[in-house]
Amino acid sequence: MMTTLKNDLLLRALRKEKVERPPVWMMRQAGRYLPDYIKLRNQYDFFTRVQTPELATAITLQPIDQVGVDAAIIFSDILVIPQAMGLEVLMEEGKGPSLPKTIKTKADVNALITEGVEENLSYVTSALALTKKELNGRVPLIGFAGAPWTLLCYMVEGKGSKTWDKAKQFVYTEPALAHSLLQKITDITIKYLVAQVKAGADTVQVFDSWAGSLSPSDFQTFAQPYLLQIADALKDHAPVILFPKGTWHALEDLSKSSASGIGIDWTISPEYARKLTSNNITLQGNFDPAKLLAPIPQIKIWVKEMIDAFGVQNYIANLGHGITPNIPVDHAKAFVDAVKEYQPSNDN
Amino acid sequence: MMTTLKNDLLLRALRKEKVERPPVWMMRQAGRYLPDYIKLRNQYDFFTRVQTPELATAITLQPIDQVGVDAAIIFSDILVIPQAMGLEVLMEEGKGPSLPKTIKTKADVNALITEGVEENLSYVTSALALTKKELNGRVPLIGFAGAPWTLLCYMVEGKGSKTWDKAKQFVYTEPALAHSLLQKITDITIKYLVAQVKAGADTVQVFDSWAGSLSPSDFQTFAQPYLLQIADALKDHAPVILFPKGTWHALEDLSKSSASGIGIDWTISPEYARKLTSNNITLQGNFDPAKLLAPIPQIKIWVKEMIDAFGVQNYIANLGHGITPNIPVDHAKAFVDAVKEYQPSNDN
Repeated sequence: MMTTLKNDLLLRALRKEKVERPPVWMMRQAGRYLPDYIKLRNQYDFFTRVQTPELATAITLQPIDQVGVDAAIIFSDILVIPQAMGLEVLMEEGKGPSLPKTIKTKADVNALITEGVEENLSYVTSALALTKKELNGRVPLIGFAGAPWTLLCYMVEGKGSKTWDKAKQFVYTEPALAHSLLQKITDITIKYLVAQVKAGADTVQVFDSWAGSLSPSDFQTFAQPYLLQIADALKDHAPVILFPKGTWHALEDLSKSSASGIGIDWTISPEYARKLTSNNITLQGNFDPAKLLAPIPQIKIWVKEMIDAFGVQNYIANLGHGITPNIPVDHAKAFVDAVKEYQPSNDN
Repeated sequence: MMTTLKNDLLLRALRKEKVERPPVWMMRQAGRYLPDYIKLRNQYDFFTRVQTPELATAITLQPIDQVGVDAAIIFSDILVIPQAMGLEVLMEEGKGPSLPKTIKTKADVNALITEGVEENLSYVTSALALTKKELNGRVPLIGFAGAPWTLLCYMVEGKGSKTWDKAKQFVYTEPALAHSLLQKITDITIKYLVAQVKAGADTVQVFDSWAGSLSPSDFQTFAQPYLLQIADALKDHAPVILFPKGTWHALEDLSKSSASGIGIDWTISPEYARKLTSNNITLQGNFDPAKLLAPIPQIKIWVKEMIDAFGVQNYIANLGHGITPNIPVDHAKAFVDAVKEYQPSNDN
């Protein structure tokens, strides 16, 4: 059963169709800056929220109703894949994820579950189907997964890291084994994202949060090929947004990929990102979440400058990284409102 | 009393004079990967090591004797300036620095000590003079300071941060006050670095460790102008190396500054860094410290590739960030040896 979307700005921007104004959403928009999210967090632990479709749906819908974004992104986590591959994942509030058993050897890689992983993640597809129904065509629904390199980081390191040097030591010392692990994650991720689209996701985003820890050459070796495989495999199912944070150096290459959009962070100017991508692809970003701590009138000025710099077409207004828990809701709303109120400075 | 340097490779590279091979040193080369450093750390607390010239000198000399680097960098810390400006700095081993009282208001900025700060840091100049004497001309001696933006980060935030959003909130909400603080730090830093040169530093490096957290536009507003002031003020005293980590976007501008060298990290390729700087300035870097965890033969291959890519002239081989405590000493030495053994691949 197809529901016609009342607001399809996001999908039109991804298809490079003309829009009246840019669509806007925020990474981590269903998260800890929202008091209603905190209420559910105080009642249910993290994986209960993720694995109970009714809770995941309720959380996913909160920012649509309360902040007015132009897209919903399913409430879930990138670590559901390592978890479904057999690694225990602990999520302690305020402390970030940890994986007690990490990948060190070929035997560890071989012991990972690789068959039927997407079936084990049916709670995500159920949450997508329920959210799709509840949205009733108001806005598009975004599915997502972690990129292979970023998942390898957690699977090898066992927790967050400033340097990811255990993960790097693994791939530098055992490159063939690393590639075999990256390929396993890629194959599973493709099936998982296709299942998300079948369940109702209108587009999918791949988060390569730690791509920027790699040199350009290592990114090309250990991250980019797997991102491209995913984009190629998904392109006939739904538009794909790649978000390899911190990899300004890959923008030109990625603009020629099968992806429909590339997310960028604030460490590159919109003008330069457009130049590197020859305006060939829709760009998404790149407001520094810390700027949402500034006074509201200042936020609105910066949002206008950002849209002026990216241009209205082939653009998705977003942050350059997830919104942080310390952002006042009215500041988040001011960001969204400023995009909706956008009027160009000149007669272009 | 001037001592002729037996090994002046570093200074010749900074003056863009011809060298037989690139000089090599490592950021944090006097640090926790060295067993002899650990011995002193177990006997004396951090600020005792920093403030006792005999200890600072002994630590500074360790990597010269044990790893064979082509330069000594004085053992000290960037937070000695905030400390000498009146802020308490606590250094708990393994936990990073913390400042119990942070800068929040105009009154806080006004309460900072700004007169005679460099005299309060005479333990650093004494350590430089003693180290210079002990080096007896073996290799050049590098002095250093933290960049104004990076020091503001710690002074406002009170500790390390992934996002530096308190520091950003401060500069976005109170830009005039932020600039007044940045200027105070700059004025003190200039006097401090001139004093270091007079005490024996042959060159000085300015560490802007958190410059990469800023957008290009914010870097130009809150960081770059102060780096340029420091480079301008020092240029008639000694060659200046600027290391604003993560700011590939500023390389072109900085290559036209009064600095003699720019440090870069591994998130930009040597070739592209040369292109952006039009080969106008000596570049320093950019080996990912995590690569020192790879097997020694692999380290040597990568070092050769790095030098091939940068070229032998106008180049200082270094890491792209500080060496981490988990690096085996023989791997650090392999890095240094590989630079010393460098032979070009072709007849260029």
